[in-house]
Amino acid sequence: MPAAPGPASASPAASSGRIRVPAEAVRRQIEAILSAWGMRADGVAAAAEVMTETDLRGVDSHGITMLLRYDEARRLGAFKWAPDIRVEQETPATALIDADRSLGHAPALRAIDLAIDKARALGVGAVAVRNSDHFGAAGAYALRAARQGLIGIATTNASVPAVVPTRSTVPLFSTNPIAFAAPAATRRPFVLDMATSTVAVGKVNVAWLNDRPLPAGWVVDEAGRPVTDAALGRDYIYKRLEGGLTPLGGAEETGGYKGYGLCAMVEILSAVLAGATAMPLHPGGTHTKAHRDVGHFFIALDPGAFRPRAAFLAEMDAFIDALHNAPAADPARPVLVPGDPEWAHYDDRAALGVPLPLKLVEALRELARAANAPFLLPQPPRMA
Amino acid sequence: MPAAPGPASASPAASSGRIRVPAEAVRRQIEAILSAWGMRADGVAAAAEVMTETDLRGVDSHGITMLLRYDEARRLGAFKWAPDIRVEQETPATALIDADRSLGHAPALRAIDLAIDKARALGVGAVAVRNSDHFGAAGAYALRAARQGLIGIATTNASVPAVVPTRSTVPLFSTNPIAFAAPAATRRPFVLDMATSTVAVGKVNVAWLNDRPLPAGWVVDEAGRPVTDAALGRDYIYKRLEGGLTPLGGAEETGGYKGYGLCAMVEILSAVLAGATAMPLHPGGTHTKAHRDVGHFFIALDPGAFRPRAAFLAEMDAFIDALHNAPAADPARPVLVPGDPEWAHYDDRAALGVPLPLKLVEALRELARAANAPFLLPQPPRMA
Repeated sequence: MPAAPGPASASPAASSGRIRVPAEAVRRQIEAILSAWGMRADGVAAAAEVMTETDLRGVDSHGITMLLRYDEARRLGAFKWAPDIRVEQETPATALIDADRSLGHAPALRAIDLAIDKARALGVGAVAVRNSDHFGAAGAYALRAARQGLIGIATTNASVPAVVPTRSTVPLFSTNPIAFAAPAATRRPFVLDMATSTVAVGKVNVAWLNDRPLPAGWVVDEAGRPVTDAALGRDYIYKRLEGGLTPLGGAEETGGYKGYGLCAMVEILSAVLAGATAMPLHPGGTHTKAHRDVGHFFIALDPGAFRPRAAFLAEMDAFIDALHNAPAADPARPVLVPGDPEWAHYDDRAALGVPLPLKLVEALRELARAANAPFLLPQPPRMA
Repeated sequence: MPAAPGPASASPAASSGRIRVPAEAVRRQIEAILSAWGMRADGVAAAAEVMTETDLRGVDSHGITMLLRYDEARRLGAFKWAPDIRVEQETPATALIDADRSLGHAPALRAIDLAIDKARALGVGAVAVRNSDHFGAAGAYALRAARQGLIGIATTNASVPAVVPTRSTVPLFSTNPIAFAAPAATRRPFVLDMATSTVAVGKVNVAWLNDRPLPAGWVVDEAGRPVTDAALGRDYIYKRLEGGLTPLGGAEETGGYKGYGLCAMVEILSAVLAGATAMPLHPGGTHTKAHRDVGHFFIALDPGAFRPRAAFLAEMDAFIDALHNAPAADPARPVLVPGDPEWAHYDDRAALGVPLPLKLVEALRELARAANAPFLLPQPPRMA
């Protein structure tokens, strides 16, 4: 459960400044713009699938809104639109994929699908990807395995420095997420999808938009001191070379070195093992360059290789129920299972559409216009 | 780097109340007591190896001191001393081991060694263990893979409830550690070994022994409120049914739900997947019972299956150096790499011996006497 419901998760009644857009329209708009940029059909389909599902699951920071960032990257020459995504090295249980500078969704789907195939044959599959780019929400790939009855694990590094290691003054990692999903018999899959920072950048933006201070422990300055002014916090993240997000745990005293350790673990798996660009070796990141060379890492595990599959799935049901039924400090706020907030978003949005801020709809209209792509979202009221 | 140097890491000059004991004497004392309890030689050798190395690495909570807790467990009838540790299910890349109620070290060593063998053949090996018990420090098993040039991952659940899920009032998990180790060419391995709670129980004890308050965010009461009185904190951990340790991240606002998610992930891998006892399904834990049924999970990855091994190892050197050389907020406190504190302990203790509190030496003398085992530690001055 990475993201507490953000602003776009408001109920329909409270959705002033937003319109609800059917997921199918979101998907077609993504496809139209990526196609107009010159992306080959297989890449378009992969990106649209992952991004639309991410919007349905309420992870607004990683859905259709990413087209705005992909546009910036594309102007730098980041992507090959007809990449030769290929398996470079392989055993019956592992593979390395070279993404040939593709946007990340297509090579990541290929990698998790390959890991799933290998896990079906041998119980476990591990696939690394190098020479890739942003792949959206890590949870999408872990969940893909869970939907097929397997445990899925996905990690990625990225190109933008954001997280300051414990005791340091400069960001040396992206928010390096870990996703883990496990299937159940009748319950929805357990889906943990978390940045290894205390919070994602999006939460700082939400506090700023709402004129709220930042809790101490989200952002630190160049001396490691807490930054509680939200505007200043954004400065430290976006503009200044020093300071940034804390690793999960915050200060050293409250375990921040563990979040830093997890962040470094994700970098080792996703970049050093895959042969992609490890950010500590390229301070400042690669987001301002044409060649980003992001890396990902995936594991799929078949529960049937360890115990009867039905017994595993039934026990996952019981495990999920036990957490839901645990005594809650506040009965109005029951204990959640990782994935619950996203499943609630999914049900709401599959029925009522994805709430898009009018500002985003305007920006997408402009993006479509500039790309000579059709604009397929509902026409919102013109903004003042 | 799980544990900041604790009291036992004081320099020799400051070791009042402690004596330095050569690691070899620690090992022989462990062997003598376990043998006197009736443990078969292979189990004795495995436990003594892991526990002694753990003391050398400065993880005092999980070394020879654990004999006191194993004695309590043994009196409950927890262990089979001549267990039939066997592979129950196997593919070329995975295995399930039934530990037959062994103390955890022997089945865990067998499991990581099997994972290593499988990774050497196929690039990855994943091995689960059920029906086991406490295996010591998770880092020992991850490091065992790294020492052989592989990446190692180890997780375990345990039998004592300690960690309160976000929004709940009762502990439903042990401190469920994750260990991850990666080898380098000339640098010492990267070794992350962390409880998924904000701090381990041992740190609360150290604060209490030193009359220091607990930082808010370590321990919560039955309403989820921070407990800062160290004695009260120990009550919530050891005596009261409600309250306990927070998951990494602390409060929900500072990301505690992520630590809870990681804790639950470890429980799924170590217990639900392995077919061991998942604690949320047995509230109160199994530590007061003869049958604990703890589970572990291990993965080994051969970097050579993903890129040339030498390139991976050289880049790990550069990665470790880049972190060490990162600008530090306080030049007197340089940026650490996970594992650094333990390597510093290792060098110190390999040269000067393991510092054991006199109180512990006394307790071990009594344990040896009661077991009719020889007492092999240096005779400390008698305590008042």
